[in-house]
Amino acid sequence: MAIEFWQEEFETLGKKDLQKLQVDRLNKTIESACRSPFYGNLYSKKNIKPGAIKAISQIAELPFTTKQDLRENFPYGFLSLPKKDIIRLHSSSGTTGNPTVIFHNRHDLKSWANLMARSLFCAGIRDTDVFQNICGYGLFTGGLGFQYGIETLGALSIPAGAGNSLRQIKLMRDYGTTAAHAIPSYLGRLYEVFEAEGLDPKRDTQLKTLVIGAEPHTDAQRKRIEEMYGVRAFNSFGLSEMNGPGVAFECTHQNGLHIWEDSYVVEIIDPETLQPVPDGEYGELVMTTLDREAMPLIRYRTRDITRIIPGECECGRTHRRIDRITGRSDDMFIIKGCNVFPMQIEGVLMKIPEVGSDYMIHLETMNGADEMVVEVEVKSDWFQGDIKRLNSLSNTITRQIRDEVLAKPIVKLVEAGSIPKSEGKAIRVTDNRKNGLLN
Amino acid sequence: MAIEFWQEEFETLGKKDLQKLQVDRLNKTIESACRSPFYGNLYSKKNIKPGAIKAISQIAELPFTTKQDLRENFPYGFLSLPKKDIIRLHSSSGTTGNPTVIFHNRHDLKSWANLMARSLFCAGIRDTDVFQNICGYGLFTGGLGFQYGIETLGALSIPAGAGNSLRQIKLMRDYGTTAAHAIPSYLGRLYEVFEAEGLDPKRDTQLKTLVIGAEPHTDAQRKRIEEMYGVRAFNSFGLSEMNGPGVAFECTHQNGLHIWEDSYVVEIIDPETLQPVPDGEYGELVMTTLDREAMPLIRYRTRDITRIIPGECECGRTHRRIDRITGRSDDMFIIKGCNVFPMQIEGVLMKIPEVGSDYMIHLETMNGADEMVVEVEVKSDWFQGDIKRLNSLSNTITRQIRDEVLAKPIVKLVEAGSIPKSEGKAIRVTDNRKNGLLN
Ligand SMILES: [Zn+2]
Ligand SMILES: [Zn+2]
Repeated sequence: MAIEFWQEEFETLGKKDLQKLQVDRLNKTIESACRSPFYGNLYSKKNIKPGAIKAISQIAELPFTTKQDLRENFPYGFLSLPKKDIIRLHSSSGTTGNPTVIFHNRHDLKSWANLMARSLFCAGIRDTDVFQNICGYGLFTGGLGFQYGIETLGALSIPAGAGNSLRQIKLMRDYGTTAAHAIPSYLGRLYEVFEAEGLDPKRDTQLKTLVIGAEPHTDAQRKRIEEMYGVRAFNSFGLSEMNGPGVAFECTHQNGLHIWEDSYVVEIIDPETLQPVPDGEYGELVMTTLDREAMPLIRYRTRDITRIIPGECECGRTHRRIDRITGRSDDMFIIKGCNVFPMQIEGVLMKIPEVGSDYMIHLETMNGADEMVVEVEVKSDWFQGDIKRLNSLSNTITRQIRDEVLAKPIVKLVEAGSIPKSEGKAIRVTDNRKNGLLN
Repeated sequence: MAIEFWQEEFETLGKKDLQKLQVDRLNKTIESACRSPFYGNLYSKKNIKPGAIKAISQIAELPFTTKQDLRENFPYGFLSLPKKDIIRLHSSSGTTGNPTVIFHNRHDLKSWANLMARSLFCAGIRDTDVFQNICGYGLFTGGLGFQYGIETLGALSIPAGAGNSLRQIKLMRDYGTTAAHAIPSYLGRLYEVFEAEGLDPKRDTQLKTLVIGAEPHTDAQRKRIEEMYGVRAFNSFGLSEMNGPGVAFECTHQNGLHIWEDSYVVEIIDPETLQPVPDGEYGELVMTTLDREAMPLIRYRTRDITRIIPGECECGRTHRRIDRITGRSDDMFIIKGCNVFPMQIEGVLMKIPEVGSDYMIHLETMNGADEMVVEVEVKSDWFQGDIKRLNSLSNTITRQIRDEVLAKPIVKLVEAGSIPKSEGKAIRVTDNRKNGLLN
């Protein structure tokens, strides 16, 4: 396969050139940010001046920006341009309290649409594709974000919106949809409707690519979706504070998401110490916009937990890859001095074939020491009362969790169905420690 | 007030220059249409060739296109370009039968966005406005149609979507919304929510302009909306086959909707004889696209009933004005040789202060002759058993209906509440004639 790029001149920039571009754009961004009430005030207090950044590592000298800052300076405290230059806003939902709002001028929307087109192209989608955007429109960024990207790419967009599975299926079949965007859990429900209608997406549609995002999911879920639909499924990452979708995207090698470093500075920090973590280690993603005029954000703490995947991608793109999001920094707990994210444990468990669908993490104080007890269901068709096999499985899980999070767990295997199902979002961690933080 | 235009060079074209432009564009449109399977086949059979049109009146020599044609040639029979050039489709809803689908290439979307911006500008909306688009997005053309238009104009767009009144109100107040688009019936419901919250849109919002469309409504409804919100409300007209919104729009003089004649050829025909009706008379709107590349439609029978408003508009725009849509040609009936649309009768009744909220039209055969019996509720606080006043009202109604539709009705006044309310769409006409067509 020929290597192809949407914007080769940006996507394959060497490290030095990329960093030079980042430094130039960061200085411009600081200059523009200083025109906003929030940064103008903050940077003048801290004597931070445009042009101060000579090497991209110096970004660590700038203060962080948090969601709390956004809320407290609602609605116009981060605006760097006169209101009349703004042509769109996206805001979080809810009818009480201050929402999070992001403003865009014409340049920002064009630049966002371009990053979306680059992302879709990177996943192998072309102007010959028929792309069905199965997601809510309006203030939610997935709708308009993908819409503008598909049109910029030149594929045929079907602005299908969310829900109404029968209609989604009819659209797919009427227009020969080859690619679609949806949240992973919806694709499971949609498949059930296909089945109920006596249809098989593999036989009865022309789908070859799915883009999944906006909802944390494991690689096992991705594989299941790929099998159900007979497609390749690509991870999309974005957050509304950084525009929405189009921040990071998997290429056809499906080994992590290229994060567009000409448009964002990417840092991974320890959410406790706020210091950078080495490549390969999990931490909180911190992002700085480099190409946004209306509302630059500098060192924004996303709360999303991921890691930089070390090494280069075979596709030839030089922008680094992040791993799928493994949770929120608010979910992190510390045990035996190690920062642990529940999704790391889940990641280990889901790769072990004997493990069933549920697990719980209990943090306990035992004989004065804090311990992490991991309760794991085993599949009912596997467990036949063989104690030797149980011990062997328990040892495997213990070792693999320790390798992943560095803290050794106490593993308890339990029968399938013995962990109570929770309504809504699953609760995966209980903290019963004497000085536990999660109580 | 200074006269201002979005595109003065097009909006103020003299009649001759406008017709010359139309002839040029119509010939190009025929040329492009001939590349579609439907028109290619039809025009070759009828020996219609690009360049055949020398005067715009010759358009009457071309065959009509109907919704039935669109359905029978679903999905690609009207496509004039290779599929890979298409970047968006909009299609009607429904999960059974063939929907109506319209395809757009990049040029078409740009041209549509420009017409929308021109329309908003014409109603006095500027880049300093904050415009909340209260309508469904996705395949419904009101969402993306207005979105692209607002952004092209340069106003701040709030892609609010439909429903969730509390949130709509919060958005209006958080961002100082000055203009909004919604269907008239929703604005009534929204006002009730304002009231329930102890809020008054006149005092508690910065609204000054509302755009209403997509739903037939009377001028009385418009006036009520203007009073409730303390705004000016402008009519918007569009239909998905002609892109969606942005086809015709009221200017600040609010006396009819300028229909953009550089982009559409406009004809009004008698739906029975298919012959043109004189300016000022009601008939079916027939439209031809002049600036659409992917899917030109020539002499498309819209089924919408309106009329050309004679005379020139004070705003200086030379594009003719159509009246608000007064119904669908399918609703038309013929009585005593006159074509009558129920909305004409409603228009007369709603202007008479003594008339209540309901009426019915009964077509009857009496002594061998067909008669139109109009049953009219009178307001309960007005009727006090005074037969002289009743007779006088009845005579007024009879005379005004006859003046409007040319056929003399038999008017029956009834008490308020005596006409049964129908669920859903009101049924306004019953046909009990011996050879009635509406049975
Ligand atoms: Zn790659
Ligand atoms: Zn005018």
